[in-house]
Amino acid sequence: MDFALSTRALELRDRLAEFIATEVDPAEALYREQVEASGDPHFHPPVMEELKAKARTLGLWNLAIPDPRWGAGLSNVDYAPLCELMGASPLSGEATNCSAPDTGNMEILAEFGTPDQQDRWLVPLLEGTIRSGFAMTEPWVASSDARNIASTIIGVGDDYVINAHKWWTTGAAHPNCEFVILMGVSDPDADPYRRHSMIIVPLDTPGVRLVRTLPVFGHDGGGGHGELLFENVRVPAGNILGEEGGGFALAQARLGPGRIHHCMRAIGLAERALALMCARAQMRVAFGIALADQGVVQDRVAESRIEIEQARLLTMKAAWLMDTVGNKGARFEIAAIKVVGARLATTVIDRAIQLFGAAGLSDDWPLAEMYTHARTLHFVDGPDEVHKQQIARRELRAYEGFRS
Amino acid sequence: MDFALSTRALELRDRLAEFIATEVDPAEALYREQVEASGDPHFHPPVMEELKAKARTLGLWNLAIPDPRWGAGLSNVDYAPLCELMGASPLSGEATNCSAPDTGNMEILAEFGTPDQQDRWLVPLLEGTIRSGFAMTEPWVASSDARNIASTIIGVGDDYVINAHKWWTTGAAHPNCEFVILMGVSDPDADPYRRHSMIIVPLDTPGVRLVRTLPVFGHDGGGGHGELLFENVRVPAGNILGEEGGGFALAQARLGPGRIHHCMRAIGLAERALALMCARAQMRVAFGIALADQGVVQDRVAESRIEIEQARLLTMKAAWLMDTVGNKGARFEIAAIKVVGARLATTVIDRAIQLFGAAGLSDDWPLAEMYTHARTLHFVDGPDEVHKQQIARRELRAYEGFRS
Amino acid sequence: MDFALSTRALELRDRLAEFIATEVDPAEALYREQVEASGDPHFHPPVMEELKAKARTLGLWNLAIPDPRWGAGLSNVDYAPLCELMGASPLSGEATNCSAPDTGNMEILAEFGTPDQQDRWLVPLLEGTIRSGFAMTEPWVASSDARNIASTIIGVGDDYVINAHKWWTTGAAHPNCEFVILMGVSDPDADPYRRHSMIIVPLDTPGVRLVRTLPVFGHDGGGGHGELLFENVRVPAGNILGEEGGGFALAQARLGPGRIHHCMRAIGLAERALALMCARAQMRVAFGIALADQGVVQDRVAESRIEIEQARLLTMKAAWLMDTVGNKGARFEIAAIKVVGARLATTVIDRAIQLFGAAGLSDDWPLAEMYTHARTLHFVDGPDEVHKQQIARRELRAYEGFRS
Amino acid sequence: MDFALSTRALELRDRLAEFIATEVDPAEALYREQVEASGDPHFHPPVMEELKAKARTLGLWNLAIPDPRWGAGLSNVDYAPLCELMGASPLSGEATNCSAPDTGNMEILAEFGTPDQQDRWLVPLLEGTIRSGFAMTEPWVASSDARNIASTIIGVGDDYVINAHKWWTTGAAHPNCEFVILMGVSDPDADPYRRHSMIIVPLDTPGVRLVRTLPVFGHDGGGGHGELLFENVRVPAGNILGEEGGGFALAQARLGPGRIHHCMRAIGLAERALALMCARAQMRVAFGIALADQGVVQDRVAESRIEIEQARLLTMKAAWLMDTVGNKGARFEIAAIKVVGARLATTVIDRAIQLFGAAGLSDDWPLAEMYTHARTLHFVDGPDEVHKQQIARRELRAYEGFRS
Repeated sequence: MDFALSTRALELRDRLAEFIATEVDPAEALYREQVEASGDPHFHPPVMEELKAKARTLGLWNLAIPDPRWGAGLSNVDYAPLCELMGASPLSGEATNCSAPDTGNMEILAEFGTPDQQDRWLVPLLEGTIRSGFAMTEPWVASSDARNIASTIIGVGDDYVINAHKWWTTGAAHPNCEFVILMGVSDPDADPYRRHSMIIVPLDTPGVRLVRTLPVFGHDGGGGHGELLFENVRVPAGNILGEEGGGFALAQARLGPGRIHHCMRAIGLAERALALMCARAQMRVAFGIALADQGVVQDRVAESRIEIEQARLLTMKAAWLMDTVGNKGARFEIAAIKVVGARLATTVIDRAIQLFGAAGLSDDWPLAEMYTHARTLHFVDGPDEVHKQQIARRELRAYEGFRS
Repeated sequence: MDFALSTRALELRDRLAEFIATEVDPAEALYREQVEASGDPHFHPPVMEELKAKARTLGLWNLAIPDPRWGAGLSNVDYAPLCELMGASPLSGEATNCSAPDTGNMEILAEFGTPDQQDRWLVPLLEGTIRSGFAMTEPWVASSDARNIASTIIGVGDDYVINAHKWWTTGAAHPNCEFVILMGVSDPDADPYRRHSMIIVPLDTPGVRLVRTLPVFGHDGGGGHGELLFENVRVPAGNILGEEGGGFALAQARLGPGRIHHCMRAIGLAERALALMCARAQMRVAFGIALADQGVVQDRVAESRIEIEQARLLTMKAAWLMDTVGNKGARFEIAAIKVVGARLATTVIDRAIQLFGAAGLSDDWPLAEMYTHARTLHFVDGPDEVHKQQIARRELRAYEGFRS
Repeated sequence: MDFALSTRALELRDRLAEFIATEVDPAEALYREQVEASGDPHFHPPVMEELKAKARTLGLWNLAIPDPRWGAGLSNVDYAPLCELMGASPLSGEATNCSAPDTGNMEILAEFGTPDQQDRWLVPLLEGTIRSGFAMTEPWVASSDARNIASTIIGVGDDYVINAHKWWTTGAAHPNCEFVILMGVSDPDADPYRRHSMIIVPLDTPGVRLVRTLPVFGHDGGGGHGELLFENVRVPAGNILGEEGGGFALAQARLGPGRIHHCMRAIGLAERALALMCARAQMRVAFGIALADQGVVQDRVAESRIEIEQARLLTMKAAWLMDTVGNKGARFEIAAIKVVGARLATTVIDRAIQLFGAAGLSDDWPLAEMYTHARTLHFVDGPDEVHKQQIARRELRAYEGFRS
Repeated sequence: MDFALSTRALELRDRLAEFIATEVDPAEALYREQVEASGDPHFHPPVMEELKAKARTLGLWNLAIPDPRWGAGLSNVDYAPLCELMGASPLSGEATNCSAPDTGNMEILAEFGTPDQQDRWLVPLLEGTIRSGFAMTEPWVASSDARNIASTIIGVGDDYVINAHKWWTTGAAHPNCEFVILMGVSDPDADPYRRHSMIIVPLDTPGVRLVRTLPVFGHDGGGGHGELLFENVRVPAGNILGEEGGGFALAQARLGPGRIHHCMRAIGLAERALALMCARAQMRVAFGIALADQGVVQDRVAESRIEIEQARLLTMKAAWLMDTVGNKGARFEIAAIKVVGARLATTVIDRAIQLFGAAGLSDDWPLAEMYTHARTLHFVDGPDEVHKQQIARRELRAYEGFRS
């Protein structure tokens, strides 16, 4: 066993940390000003393009892409500490071209895309000139079971015709968002696991409409979370991803890295919340004693540190399994970190908020917005309950012989 | 022992419930439209005045005021079920003239105000023609210990001169808000408990400035939470409340009812969240089974019901003690319900959110906004930790003889 | 609403408290000596008979029996504070003839027994000259569902023939235990709710065998928990309780008071644990600071006090409902306190143990034995999970209209 | 990073697992019979010596000793999976000569003992012919702070004279226990960290008295937990360990491995409890559904698996740090796993007990005894609270600059 990070991971982590500390985080104020000045919460401010240019110069670009033909070629283990840093710095993901949902889309396109699809969509994504969305969740069904997806993708001649109502399509309102990958039923009579397909839908195709963006705890900004209607949207057959009927398998493949990235970022969120908590505890005096000297506060600091360490180790273990035995072999560990990461982030951020009092809920500190994001982690890519059920069923399977 | 509500409480509860169901809640959409149309999040929409007029006609007015000379004259026990209903209906508090912080201010003015102060400020508050704020919390000190308050109220001739920086002054941005009751140091050399005074400060006094309103989880609306600067603000000596040096005692007196009202409303929030949770559990099917038939969901429903019942009973016990032995005799029970009420509301609402998935965090359902409010209850009128410390110290005092 | 205890309850509580403080608790050492001297952990020591005689003289006798023809005739509300005191004093239940499972058996015999059964079994139970058991739980089925009970009670001529394997029959090893009430299947073909009967089985009937007593966390003593075999045990038909096929209904009737008594005693356990915790916190110094002055300890004291108050109020509410609308009308509240009482007792005792360190687990303090008993409350009369399921289903039923 | 166990660890783990499965666990019944037949709960049954002989033959001996001159020479990382297996098998620690407190004593003697001390005490310990105790905890002070230790070790001529009252000296009642290492004050006027010494005290020295053994949750057996009085006990100066005044440093050195071994065993306990829980869940049917198919049960299985994985990883990380940067460099990770291990074991065992119902608390299953041991882990080698405080202080130290 060896718990040390590789030289490359350490070097990249230091480089990224410095870039974030000296360039990205200091640019936040300007970013907000430019957005506010535009009057459009989804405005793409010029400062972001400057950050992206710098990141690229520094070799901090496409770090999430494991295939060296397309990106940095880092293992999951090596990417983890970088992704964690990004979790604590809101602008850094886009600045380094490592944002969800693009990274997931890039991975699918890299692995399953045709050369044409790669030229048309993957290359500009990797260049950072366009962005993309992933249109999976639907308002009327429990999307935790991918087989519930009800939108249709019907082959008609050389085209597919799509009718779909999707929401929580993250990034759909980003001005650079050019397409979504959409999941729908292509053959309602097939086996449940062969019923769905994924298809590329350019947002400027006739019939696609962004109905609205959905606020989260009242927050709406950046790429937003879109509600999209697709009415008789016609795209060429060449837009299908992988093969017709392969949607469920693609969804599974896509979720592995997506989930673990969420968890890495959740650890970054928790680290930042703990740092804020500690600083506040030293600054604030109540009833004549610094909060840092009060037992109840110390208890929360210790619990937070212990929880962070454990969550990080489980995430690294899952990443190592993905690197060594593949996403499928790591699926129970991925399920576990999904639960652990979400819980970690909301718990630690909430403790920090409590130390800040009402200020912790205002916009003066980043905690409320951090919590807002962290809370969504309890259901993005499947609710905690579903992940736990999978873990339990695997565990219990070994004891089926005891059943009478 | 008798756990039955009085006839009057039952009758008023039914009347209020009907008013809310048929008038108040259906008016929410129009309320929002009128606010949005105004372009000002703190706009006071005409529909609210219509609701107030109706409430008054129905005898649903000033229900929180226990002194029958000024209001409904209800005991705390009788008011509890009404306040709980208001907790579940955002517009109903203002519609029935039972909103914080006005009710607390009314109580202080009724009990400690001079006839002049009552004529000038209490009567219009009771009429619902003006609103008010309570300027207590300060940015730079832990307000959980009222003795930390650092703003100054210095007697100069026949006036007092106020210099203060306050924030989280709820309602300060309401167009009808005409004055705040402000707490500050009037004699820095006095005993810590005689150092502060409370004074009435009209918002149109020169030197008073509303710097901004503070969002909570990104939400800002209604009367808002104001950050206020008071620079050399001069008001007549007759504006002092009670006596000079009596601020700490007034703060204590004011908090009793304020705290219990918060808790009653928290129970209402929890009841509403549980109702939403149950409805969703029946509607939603995952993996072929209605959520309502799943053990994990049932467990949360049961825990929620059990927690609500216990919180309600403890609140009623505290109310009964306030009615029978006074606020001071009930102070540990009030501290206890403050902790319990906040925890109940955030816990049950969070469970409901989890059942709704991402929709639960959007504005399509009221849960995110409910959570936003509930989260503040963990520190308004003192953080949970301070209340628990008071309870513990009382408990431990009886065992001091064991100390070696 | 009125949270005050009645004059009678207050008077009896004071009298019982004094009896316990001056007679019962001081007799514990002698009780143990007499048991140890006998060499039999189930020995019935003479000091207990002396305590019983004194209790009777003081009018502290059969306090649990609500029917004034047979016992003290107290309402559940009035009995609650007495039962709570007994929970904190291990010998006091038997001393006042208020021990489980006798009280439950007395109630059934009083309500459903024939005059013959009452003469033969109820009267000596009420006199305290004999004791009894309740043979319900079986090793091979989940007894949480009474319909699982598999033992048989077959009518043969004027007799019933019983074949049964029972365990956890509390009190079966008490030297004075003369009979058990046994539940079994009398008609396997009947409706599930009419399939079972209850019958009185004297322990000296041929075929009855006490296989062993079952230790709990290694503890075994007093009346013990018996494992009993009944092989072709023949008793007269007149021993049937109520009517053949009425076993399920009797079980339901018996459990109401039984469950609430368990919870009242659990509150007594928690109060005693909290008192020990506070005393220890004052006595013990760690790192130069008395535990009582440490924030983490204070937090636990406060949580314990808050939980106790809430559990007591919910128990009183359930008792009041039993008194006013009957056991059936109170069944969800009874389910709720069953869960709350068990959780309260284990939680608070465990916190106390932690403050005592290893001493808390030894026999020098009563905490380990208190925990041992408290832990069983999570399954006696049905596991927590079943009670919560019942509460949830009732709650969810109101929303069935939402099901699609 | 590499999460794979070494070849040697894997090989030893398999060999130990087979030895436990085929020899040790099957011998439990005989072990108990031999103890019971002896009439002495602390009897050392012959079967244990047979197991020891077999273990030695198999090379499964002194596995905990990292110094290859004295024992197996395994790193902490390599020992971890072995120690975990021992945690789940009560007899295996003694069978492989890897029991606490001997392993800790062996380590101190190996590292700090004089050649004479090693010949006289270490060699027979390593041979498994004698056993030993560690006399640290005292009844009247909080031993969590080692500086509280009040027993005295006074140099008189060529001897030391010891006066001490110790308790919770694990193993003191083992028939083979020949000596204890005792901590006491040798110079009350020295710096607090130089005030104490450790000294070897043979149990047959005049003045040493085993007052009693202390039961834990009523359990007493094996080597027991001794309460010992040392009255004017005189031992040669050569018995001092390390140097006079070095007791505190030795205590620190000893605790590192001791603590991590406790945690490894705790993980073994939890794994065994989870296995029992799963088997029971498959066997037991309630309300027509196997427990394994019920959501609430699945949730607990999943939480248990997630908690075990995280605790194991944190323990391995701490072990790796001990191996690479030393015990001192790993001290916060050791503090963390101490908290995590204890919590893991009690939590998972308690969940298993709940699934077994009352049977889970009886002696029919090992759960009650497992819980009994696990509960002590919350204070042996320092209570959870102290470990958390250390972690918090380290974390907060980095933010001292924020203090005003």
